[in-house]
Order: sequence, then C-alpha cells, then structure tokens
Amino acid sequence: MNTRIPVSQEQVISAFQFRHATNTFDTTKQISEEDFNYILEAGRLSPSSMGLEPWKFVVVQNPELRNKLKAVSPGAQRQLDTASHFVIILAQTDVRYDSEYLMDQLKHVKQLPEEVITFYSSALKDVQEVNGSLTDERFLYEWSAKQTYIALGNMMTAAALVGIDSCPMEGFDYAAVDRILEEEGLYQEGNLKVSVMAAFGYRSEEPARAKTRRTIDQIVTWS
Amino acid sequence: MNTRIPVSQEQVISAFQFRHATNTFDTTKQISEEDFNYILEAGRLSPSSMGLEPWKFVVVQNPELRNKLKAVSPGAQRQLDTASHFVIILAQTDVRYDSEYLMDQLKHVKQLPEEVITFYSSALKDVQEVNGSLTDERFLYEWSAKQTYIALGNMMTAAALVGIDSCPMEGFDYAAVDRILEEEGLYQEGNLKVSVMAAFGYRSEEPARAKTRRTIDQIVTWS
Repeated sequence: MNTRIPVSQEQVISAFQFRHATNTFDTTKQISEEDFNYILEAGRLSPSSMGLEPWKFVVVQNPELRNKLKAVSPGAQRQLDTASHFVIILAQTDVRYDSEYLMDQLKHVKQLPEEVITFYSSALKDVQEVNGSLTDERFLYEWSAKQTYIALGNMMTAAALVGIDSCPMEGFDYAAVDRILEEEGLYQEGNLKVSVMAAFGYRSEEPARAKTRRTIDQIVTWS
Repeated sequence: MNTRIPVSQEQVISAFQFRHATNTFDTTKQISEEDFNYILEAGRLSPSSMGLEPWKFVVVQNPELRNKLKAVSPGAQRQLDTASHFVIILAQTDVRYDSEYLMDQLKHVKQLPEEVITFYSSALKDVQEVNGSLTDERFLYEWSAKQTYIALGNMMTAAALVGIDSCPMEGFDYAAVDRILEEEGLYQEGNLKVSVMAAFGYRSEEPARAKTRRTIDQIVTWS
C-alpha cells in the first residue's frame, strides 16, 4: 500500500525555511538511530536517471578518518569536528549503457524483462552518444554525480521536515578524498568516486543571517 | 519567524513511496496556480553551493514550443504532450570565482560584507583550481548543473508531499534544446545552458510496476 499521508504546503515551506547550511553542530546532541535511518531512507528512495541509483553513502563516524578528511577538506572543518553524522556520497562511474553495473541494476534490482532492458540500454546509448562520448569517463562520472545531488537534496529536505539540521559540502580536494577512501578500503566494491559531502546533526546556534534568495521573477520565465 | 510545523517520518516516507516517474499525465487535471507556485517556491528555496542559486526555470506551456522540444527530446514525448506544467531547468554557466554573476549574487542577493565576499571568492578560487580548471567552461557548467539537481529533487519531493506527480527527464539532445531556447529569446538574460527537464501534473494511471530499490546494505557503508 502506497497511501500518502497528507502534508500541508505550509509545513513543507516551513521546513525549507528552517533548513540552513549548518557549519557548527551541537556536539551534545546525537541523531537517534531511527532518525538517521530515516534520512538514509530518503536517499535510498530518491529518483535517478533510469532508476540507476548510481550512488553509495559512506557514513564517517571514526574520528581518525574524520581527521584525515579534514586535512584535505577546507570547507568541512567544523562539520567534520561537530556533526552527529557525516556522510560522503559517492558516484558510480561505470554507467555506460552497456556497463556491468547498469545491466545488473536493470536485471536484478529493477527486474525488467529482457526486451525492456534492450530498449532502455539502446535509448541510453543514443542519449550518451548525442550528449557526451561513450569513452569519456568524466562524462559518465558527471552524469552519476548529478543524480547523487537529487539524493543529497532529498536527505537534507527529509531531515529539515523533522527538525534535523544539515550542511552540504564541496569544499575539498576530490582526488585526495578519493585516495583516502581508497586506502580505507572503501572502494573495493565497485567503480566509485567522491561526489559530495553532507553533515547532519543539530544546530549549536541559530543562523546569524536571514535566508536570502533571488525573487521568483528573477528565476522563473513562462513561455 | 521560521517556525517549523512538525511533519512525521511516516508522512515523508509515504510521499517518497507515492512519487514515481510519471510518463503520462491526466490531461483533464491541471495543477492550480497556488500549487504550482508552491512547487516553484521549493525550487527557489533550495540550497546551492555558496548560495549561488545558479539556475533558472522555464515553464513551457505553449504547445508550439512543446512540439519543437518534442522533436529533439525522445525521452519526454508523453510528458510534453500531457503534463499540466513542463519545466526546463537551466544552469548558469558564468560561475567562476570572479564572475559577474557570482559577484552580483554575493553582493546584491546575499548582501554579504566586502570582506566576506573576498574570503568566499578566494576560497572558491582554490576549490575551482584544485578540482577543475578556471578556463574549463564544461567544469563550471557541470558544477552549476549539479546544483540544479538539488532544486529538481526538492521540487519533485515538495510536489509528492502534497499529492502532485512529476517526472524528471534527461532524454534529449542538450545542444538542440539550447538552440531552440536561444531562438525563443530565452537566453538573453545571461549565460545559460539547459540542465534537466521536469514535468508536473496528475498521473493518468497507477504505475504498472512496484518501486524497486537496492537494499540499504547495498548502498550504505559505515566507517
């Protein structure tokens, strides 16, 4: 049964207003296991192109590993020190139309019939050929990375909806983080590269500045 | 006042379960103006790297323009025909640490003091130099495009939370869509390129297949 339990627009907008990029978390408050599983579930249920789920989530709780990451992540200093839960989102890099990962996903996870798989794979081949290149690893990584930002957004929104704070982070040396995670043995399972980081916890103080945004007229055009 | 109005985890998860990639919408049901403004508001309030909001939303309601897009968008055929509202999300391409867009955003939208702007811009320069190249347009576009996927995810989630269906789409010729939007005069305001499409409306039928996902153990590692 997928019965949606109604939520009001006001509730949702109030959560978006509540959310802000939390730099420093209250180190006396930990997210409960139930609550953090709920945030992971929001990531897991996120949509992705063709339903590929080209992501993995590494939850970094070990202080030693957090310290190693601090050395190469100028934009995550206080978050690595204070977050209740610190997540590194990885992107799957073998997502060419004919890759093992993609075939496994369509066959064993999505359990699509053979003819649908052939159709999907062929449609994806066309799109990948038109918009990128089938031999361009960067193109495939970027494609996956974009999908991970949907999961990132959903995890932060799901957190905000129940009053949990978060912070997305890109201020790090991507290659250095990859090396650290490789050394930790975290890349054994597949073709992975770091995409983005997200910290979760409870704010230690209210944001110093009010939220600012462009006006709706500045960002929306009707045609 | 940023008072969050509580939502339960069950309500949020039920919305994620409700959401599916809707191919065909019920053409007899239109999203109300109030509801669609709420979806746009979810996009507008989305977080982005450094708060740059490197996006624009083109709402394509004109059937002629929808038809032009159909010719170059194999993955959006039924959505272009049936969606109540069809959105093209554009990415801002001039997002180098010293770009006019970035400076305007930090100064006039975020209204940051001069010394904070200098600090932000310099930190961004470091990150852009380490992870990409300051002269690589593709790197800057991809950076912006990733941010737009946060807004995309939030718009779909906000819609699902109040019972509105959606579909994200990447199955189109990006260069051809850029040409069409350029011809329509939609790129006059800045340095923009298409990032992704999203259709909104009400499903015409329930999804044929149940939602599938990797298990939590397949996608999460604790470290």
